[in-house]
Amino acid sequence: MSESIKYNLDESQIPKFWYNLVADLPTPPPPVLHPGTHQPVGPADLEPLFPMSLIMQEVSTEREVEIPEPVREIYRQWRVTPLYRARRLEKALDTPARIYYKYEGVSPAGSHKPNTAVAQAFYNKQAGVKRIATETGAGQWGSSLAFAGAVFGIEIEVFMVRVSYNQKPYRRAMMETYGARCVPSPSRETLSGRAILDQNPDHPGSLGIAISEAVEVAAQRDDTKYALGSVLNHVLLHQTVIGQESIAQMEVADDYPDIVVGCTGGGSNFAGIAFPFIGAQLRGGKNVRVIAVEPAACPSLTRGRYAYDFGDTAHLTPLTMMHTLGSTFTPPGFHAGGLRYHGMAPLVSHLRQLGLIEARAYHQTKCFEAGVAFARAEGIIPAPEANHAVRGAIDEAIRCREEGVSRSILLNLCGHGHLDMQAYADYAAGRLVDQEYDESELAMALSGLPTV
Amino acid sequence: MSESIKYNLDESQIPKFWYNLVADLPTPPPPVLHPGTHQPVGPADLEPLFPMSLIMQEVSTEREVEIPEPVREIYRQWRVTPLYRARRLEKALDTPARIYYKYEGVSPAGSHKPNTAVAQAFYNKQAGVKRIATETGAGQWGSSLAFAGAVFGIEIEVFMVRVSYNQKPYRRAMMETYGARCVPSPSRETLSGRAILDQNPDHPGSLGIAISEAVEVAAQRDDTKYALGSVLNHVLLHQTVIGQESIAQMEVADDYPDIVVGCTGGGSNFAGIAFPFIGAQLRGGKNVRVIAVEPAACPSLTRGRYAYDFGDTAHLTPLTMMHTLGSTFTPPGFHAGGLRYHGMAPLVSHLRQLGLIEARAYHQTKCFEAGVAFARAEGIIPAPEANHAVRGAIDEAIRCREEGVSRSILLNLCGHGHLDMQAYADYAAGRLVDQEYDESELAMALSGLPTV
Repeated sequence: MSESIKYNLDESQIPKFWYNLVADLPTPPPPVLHPGTHQPVGPADLEPLFPMSLIMQEVSTEREVEIPEPVREIYRQWRVTPLYRARRLEKALDTPARIYYKYEGVSPAGSHKPNTAVAQAFYNKQAGVKRIATETGAGQWGSSLAFAGAVFGIEIEVFMVRVSYNQKPYRRAMMETYGARCVPSPSRETLSGRAILDQNPDHPGSLGIAISEAVEVAAQRDDTKYALGSVLNHVLLHQTVIGQESIAQMEVADDYPDIVVGCTGGGSNFAGIAFPFIGAQLRGGKNVRVIAVEPAACPSLTRGRYAYDFGDTAHLTPLTMMHTLGSTFTPPGFHAGGLRYHGMAPLVSHLRQLGLIEARAYHQTKCFEAGVAFARAEGIIPAPEANHAVRGAIDEAIRCREEGVSRSILLNLCGHGHLDMQAYADYAAGRLVDQEYDESELAMALSGLPTV
Repeated sequence: MSESIKYNLDESQIPKFWYNLVADLPTPPPPVLHPGTHQPVGPADLEPLFPMSLIMQEVSTEREVEIPEPVREIYRQWRVTPLYRARRLEKALDTPARIYYKYEGVSPAGSHKPNTAVAQAFYNKQAGVKRIATETGAGQWGSSLAFAGAVFGIEIEVFMVRVSYNQKPYRRAMMETYGARCVPSPSRETLSGRAILDQNPDHPGSLGIAISEAVEVAAQRDDTKYALGSVLNHVLLHQTVIGQESIAQMEVADDYPDIVVGCTGGGSNFAGIAFPFIGAQLRGGKNVRVIAVEPAACPSLTRGRYAYDFGDTAHLTPLTMMHTLGSTFTPPGFHAGGLRYHGMAPLVSHLRQLGLIEARAYHQTKCFEAGVAFARAEGIIPAPEANHAVRGAIDEAIRCREEGVSRSILLNLCGHGHLDMQAYADYAAGRLVDQEYDESELAMALSGLPTV
């Protein structure tokens, strides 16, 4: 085995296609339903929101979807992203485990989100779209789409959850630096926003509300489409460059993961690293334990119901079958804002039902503890979201030590924490609290699930 | 010429030695003087502050100084750093110029500073040093040394200018996440700090005061040494990996710069990119125009006096011949905190005297204007310091357009701005003011220069 800490690929090895896991699944995921008729939606139903090329990717069953050359041209700026062997962390943990991490924080926006933002902006530009409306929670997605919009010359309008808009001026400044318009949500610019503000002018907002506002804007304006940063099939598809590169890099390392770990909010970075490995397994390759790590305060995979639900609060989206805490569930305000969503990607949920992935939930202080240990050993300060994956990987490495077994563990370090240092300051000062969600609120949100 | 946007090197091409410009200079720089005797200092005079290996590098006249393998091992984590052709920026500027940028923001700390922090931590560890004391202004250097200290297991104590300590909690959180101790300066932990606080308990601090405190601590404790993040010869030496890699990458691009641009505060990132090109020219290679860009509010190279001066406020350091605004000069509080130093590196100053480099000064709003244009075209948001280099390069590219000439321009993008987004928010809101320094204060500071 090589003694390296970093496994490089030539830029000619940037994947030429996105990998579509649906082609290899033993059973297809349940269909997406129209919110009114409860009948499966067709491509035409989604046309007000997305360009047809993305809709066709959403419903594709082809194994390989070609990456257009202009998208690969932008990818080339930061891809192939590095895959590291965490030798110093292994030493600090005194573990026989071999820990690898794929690092997506080298993108211009500092996370994995540009992998799909660039693709979505490209297809919208190709379709003659002038403006894209979207939502953002903590701001990773909004800033990534703003970057992609600047590259392709598309106006970006971001509805940012109001509490984050006020608390995270750095992310907002990023979006505006890229030239995007950033609006605190709920806003008075939409019917759904006004309805909420009329009831409560100080409403802090939620991801579900911001989605409603962005969808409403896109549906109303002819020159405007909508974009989502996670959950949907085509978004997860675009992220599979992460796992494909990882497979090639693990080959350079002359190793193969026994365990793959990713954090899950909507599911996109997890899908990005995991799907290509799961696909390889389904096609007869080596078995891999795949672990999804989610926040204990927003535990859709471990505590949610597998049911049809809306993606937003105002119930403007189609119904998807997924692990959900209910579209009215509002998680506590923990620091990993990118994981604060009531639902889980339908494809990830389907994998859980098929028994192809495991899921576990951690509270945030244990994740920050892991993140600080990682930073001191490896030098990279992970984003609060990524700390969940780090925690999961460290716990598996500790198990290896306890069992005296050397396993190969690969985690997706989906972003750096330079824009979230306040969270680390709070952790260091002992101000981080492990918030519990409200059990009665969860019960109420679940009781409000649509009957299909 | 290749159509690429990124010029890769194999990691085997990480330089094996640092390049020492002194070996190729037509005349050596003036000697460093003892603050008491005004006689040239010998290595023994510096021993309380630095390990002997670094002192020998400080006075070395060898052209090549070998990079120890453990340092290259850490470099490998992020080096070779990318060199890009800024094709989208060229298009946005409608210029025939070929603009290249070397990007140092991919390091764990987000800037070029770890290039020397890792080297300094290594040599201190080798010398059995237990603790390193240092100062930091905005925090780039402090966080980089904190990272290096974590890697090599050395305690790091950072005296951080108090106004930055309060205004920049993100950088402080970084240092503490890496395990460093961060003390607001002036502090009550040193004689020089107490003397200032006794006069003014609310003193905002300055880089010169923080240096005095760190030097004092290092001089007093047997197990503690001092480290500086810029200015000194050995610090500039360590940064030459930037320029050496750039020369090899420009070769891959089948091009060579007509103009090299870097921003200057203490001079380290500028030296890093420029010295290898200047050395090549001095050895008979192609002529290169080298431009140092500094803040108009702290213009040591363009408005300072070339004279012997102290590096700190309490006058504990040796005297060096440099362009200086006077050790008591306090620049206005502009956003590029990394460039707020009264003096310029002696080697950079010497080059200016020899006519081997040009210098120009810009106010900050013009630099942020350039930084926003760069971000929208290239996707990377530059650090406020780096915006000075971007401004310089853009102005040269505009000149190319006006003159109808295609020149090759290489700039050092020394760090990303993710930890400085408040500055961009202030710029977008029109809150950035182009502060002028106080002419009478400059006159007074210059009149206080030591007579040598």
